[in-house]
Amino acid sequence: MKASRTRIKEDIETIARFGGLSEGGVTRLALSKEDMDGRKYLIEKMKEAGLNVTIDAVGNTIGRREGKKKLAPIMIGSHLDTVPCGGNYDGIAGVIAALETIRMLNDEGVETVRPIEVVNFTAEESSRFLTATMGSKCMKGSLTIDKIKSLKDKNGNSFYDALSQAGFEPDKLDSVKKYIGDYHAFIELHIEQGPVLEAEKKPIGIVTFIAAPTRMKINIKGKADHSGNTPMNMRRDALAGASEIILALEKIASEEAGRHTVGTVGDVRVTPGAMNVIPGEVELLVDIRDIDMNEKRKAYELFIESINEVASKRNLIIERELLVNDTPVQMSAKIINTIQEATESLGYPYKIMHSGAGHDAMNLVPITDVGMIFIPSVDGISHNIKEFTEMEDICNGADVLYASLYKLAMEDQ
Amino acid sequence: MKASRTRIKEDIETIARFGGLSEGGVTRLALSKEDMDGRKYLIEKMKEAGLNVTIDAVGNTIGRREGKKKLAPIMIGSHLDTVPCGGNYDGIAGVIAALETIRMLNDEGVETVRPIEVVNFTAEESSRFLTATMGSKCMKGSLTIDKIKSLKDKNGNSFYDALSQAGFEPDKLDSVKKYIGDYHAFIELHIEQGPVLEAEKKPIGIVTFIAAPTRMKINIKGKADHSGNTPMNMRRDALAGASEIILALEKIASEEAGRHTVGTVGDVRVTPGAMNVIPGEVELLVDIRDIDMNEKRKAYELFIESINEVASKRNLIIERELLVNDTPVQMSAKIINTIQEATESLGYPYKIMHSGAGHDAMNLVPITDVGMIFIPSVDGISHNIKEFTEMEDICNGADVLYASLYKLAMEDQ
Repeated sequence: MKASRTRIKEDIETIARFGGLSEGGVTRLALSKEDMDGRKYLIEKMKEAGLNVTIDAVGNTIGRREGKKKLAPIMIGSHLDTVPCGGNYDGIAGVIAALETIRMLNDEGVETVRPIEVVNFTAEESSRFLTATMGSKCMKGSLTIDKIKSLKDKNGNSFYDALSQAGFEPDKLDSVKKYIGDYHAFIELHIEQGPVLEAEKKPIGIVTFIAAPTRMKINIKGKADHSGNTPMNMRRDALAGASEIILALEKIASEEAGRHTVGTVGDVRVTPGAMNVIPGEVELLVDIRDIDMNEKRKAYELFIESINEVASKRNLIIERELLVNDTPVQMSAKIINTIQEATESLGYPYKIMHSGAGHDAMNLVPITDVGMIFIPSVDGISHNIKEFTEMEDICNGADVLYASLYKLAMEDQ
Repeated sequence: MKASRTRIKEDIETIARFGGLSEGGVTRLALSKEDMDGRKYLIEKMKEAGLNVTIDAVGNTIGRREGKKKLAPIMIGSHLDTVPCGGNYDGIAGVIAALETIRMLNDEGVETVRPIEVVNFTAEESSRFLTATMGSKCMKGSLTIDKIKSLKDKNGNSFYDALSQAGFEPDKLDSVKKYIGDYHAFIELHIEQGPVLEAEKKPIGIVTFIAAPTRMKINIKGKADHSGNTPMNMRRDALAGASEIILALEKIASEEAGRHTVGTVGDVRVTPGAMNVIPGEVELLVDIRDIDMNEKRKAYELFIESINEVASKRNLIIERELLVNDTPVQMSAKIINTIQEATESLGYPYKIMHSGAGHDAMNLVPITDVGMIFIPSVDGISHNIKEFTEMEDICNGADVLYASLYKLAMEDQ
C-alpha cells in the first residue's frame, strides 16, 4: 500500500490557497481568518475520511478513527499555521501525511486494534504570539490561563482573546491537558527545514533528539559620536564590539563546542543607526542550540567569556538577558526502532539524525512515546516562500508514517 | 573688548525654547514652525543690533552692518536648524557669536572699513531633506531648481515646497548665487562636535581642512536558513560576513590608511532579522573620511579588497553603491593666520586641527577666503540632547571671532 500522490497533492495545493501569496508561499498566522479557512477544509477532509472530529478548548483539531479495542490511541499530525511569507510544507506536510494514512487504512479496509487520532495543533509557529508550539504546550499542561492572556500579538490581542474570537473556549484550558496513558504513541512527520537530507540524498530522516535553544538578548552600550570628528583611537563603537561578538559565537559553535552545536546571531539593531554617527548602542538576538546539554553549556560559557573580553578591551557596557534555556528532548527508542524498521521494509534510504528546530512532538514526550519522521527540504530552505519539498518525498514519508502507525496501532498492549 | 556672557546666554537659552524638548535638547528641523520662530527671534535681535536684514530666495537670513567704504563685506555666521533630538549649540553658537561681535562693535562705537554680514544659513542639517548645507550650497550655485524640487522630506514635501510654504521664493534661486569678489572673507564659528579640544584642554580650534566623506551602501547576500537545522559548515551567514567587513574597516582606518582617516559603519539592517533565522541579507551604511584625497582613496581601495575577500571566502554576493565621494576642502591660509594671530593676541591656547564634519563654510571656499573657529564640545557629544558647550568657551570663541573680524573688516583692499 502506497500513499496517493494525487490526494496529497490536491490537499497541499488547496491548503496553499488559504493565505496564498501571489509570489508563491503563504501567510497563514495562527487563528487568523486564513488559518480558520484552512482548518475548515481539513475538517471536511477528515470527515470525508470517516474521522470523528473534535476540537479542544484551544483549537487543537483531532480527527479520530476508532480501533477494535478501547485502548490508548496513536496520535499523528502536525500544524497548519505558518510564519509570515512562509512555505506550503512546514507543518502542512505532517498533517496531510497523517490524513493520508487514514485514507490508506480505509482503502485497505484495515481495522486497527487501537484508535488513531490525526491532529492539527494550534499556533505552532511563534510568529503571532512570540511563543511556539502553543497548542501542544497546552496538552502538556505547561501554559496557564494567565500566561495565555499575557501572550499578545502585535495588535495587542492575546492568545486567549484570539481563541475566544475564533469560537474556542480558552477558559476550559484544563480540559486540554493530557496525561501519561492517554496515548500509546505520537509520531510527527515534518520537513527537515535544513540541508542535510538533500545533501546526503536520503529521503527519510529518523529523529533521535530535538535540540533545545539557549536564547539571549545582548545589549552593547558604547558611545554615539560624530563619525567625522571622532578619531579612531577615541571611539567606543558598539557595533565594532558587536561584530567581534558575532564572529566569536561563530567560531565557538564551529570549532570549540560540540559537534552538533550551532550558534546564530539572527538580528542586530543599531541605535541611532545613522550614516554619520558611530553606533552608540547595539542589540543582538542570539540563539545557541545543541542536543547535548553539556555541550550547550560549554558553548554558552565560552561565549560569555568572549563577551566579557570584548567589553573589557573596548570599554563597552554589555548586558545580557537570558530569554530561554531549554533542555534537549530525546525521542523514544521504541518509536525510533519502529520507524527504522518501517523505512527498511520499504527499502527507502534513511539517516538517523537530530532536529535542530523545536516541534510539537517535544511537548508530547512527558506523556507518551514520541518519534519524528523528517523528509527533505529542497536547498534546506524553510520559513520562506521558496520552501519546497518534492511531492515524491512527502509520499515516501507518508508511506513510512503508515507502516510505523500500522505496527503501533496493532499493538494490543 | 570681551563678548558679553549675559547677552550670549540669553540668546542661546531663548533660541533653545523653539522646539525645546522636556528632557533637554531641541528638535528644530529646517523650515519647520520651530525654525521659523527661531528665525523671527534672530531677526528681532539683528534689528536691535542695528543690522539691516534681508532674506534671500532660499531663506538665508542676512543682517548687514555697513562699513565706511562700499567694499566687499566680511560674512560671519552659521545655522539655527537642528537634527531631531539635537543640541542647543551646533550651529546656534556660531550665529549668536556672530551677532555678538556686531554688538561688541556697537559698544565700542567702531566703524569698520568694510561692511559685515551676519548670516543664518537655511537647512544646514541633512535630517529633513537628506542633504546637508542646502542654503550655502545655493550660494555656491550647486543646486538647481529641479534638484530642490526632488529633495523631499519624509512627508513628501520638497525643499522647494517648504521654501514656498515659508514665504520664500525658490523660483528666484539664481539670485542667491554668489560670485568671486562678492565677499572679502567668510568665517564660521562652530562647536567641534568631537572630543579633541576637550581632551587636549584647548578652548580654541583653528580649522585647516574640512574632511570629505566617501559614503557607501553595501548589500551582502547570503542565505536565510533555519538557525537550528543548518550545520555551521553549511551556512552562508550574511551577518557574520558583515561583521568581518565592519572590523576590516575599523582596522584599515586605525592602522593602515592615513593618520586622519576615519571609517565608520553607522547602521546595519538585517533581513529577515529573526531569532531563529540565519541572516540572509545585510545592508551596511559606510562613511570614510579624510582631509587627504589620496589617503581616502587608499582606505577605500583597501576596504574594497577586504570586502572582496570576505565575499569569496564566505560565498556571499556583495554589492556596493557609492553614494558620495567628496573632495576635502582647504581653508584659506590668510584666514588661518588671521584667526591664529587673533587667538594669540587674546592669550587663548589653541589647536590647529581639521574638521571631520562638513559645514556651510566649505561651500563658500570657491567664492572667498574662508576660515573656521572651533570651540570644545563637552565629552565630544553632538547631534544629541546631551550636546553641551560651556558658556565661557562660546564667549572665548566670540572674542576670537571679533578680533579676526575686526582685522579683516579694516582691510582696505
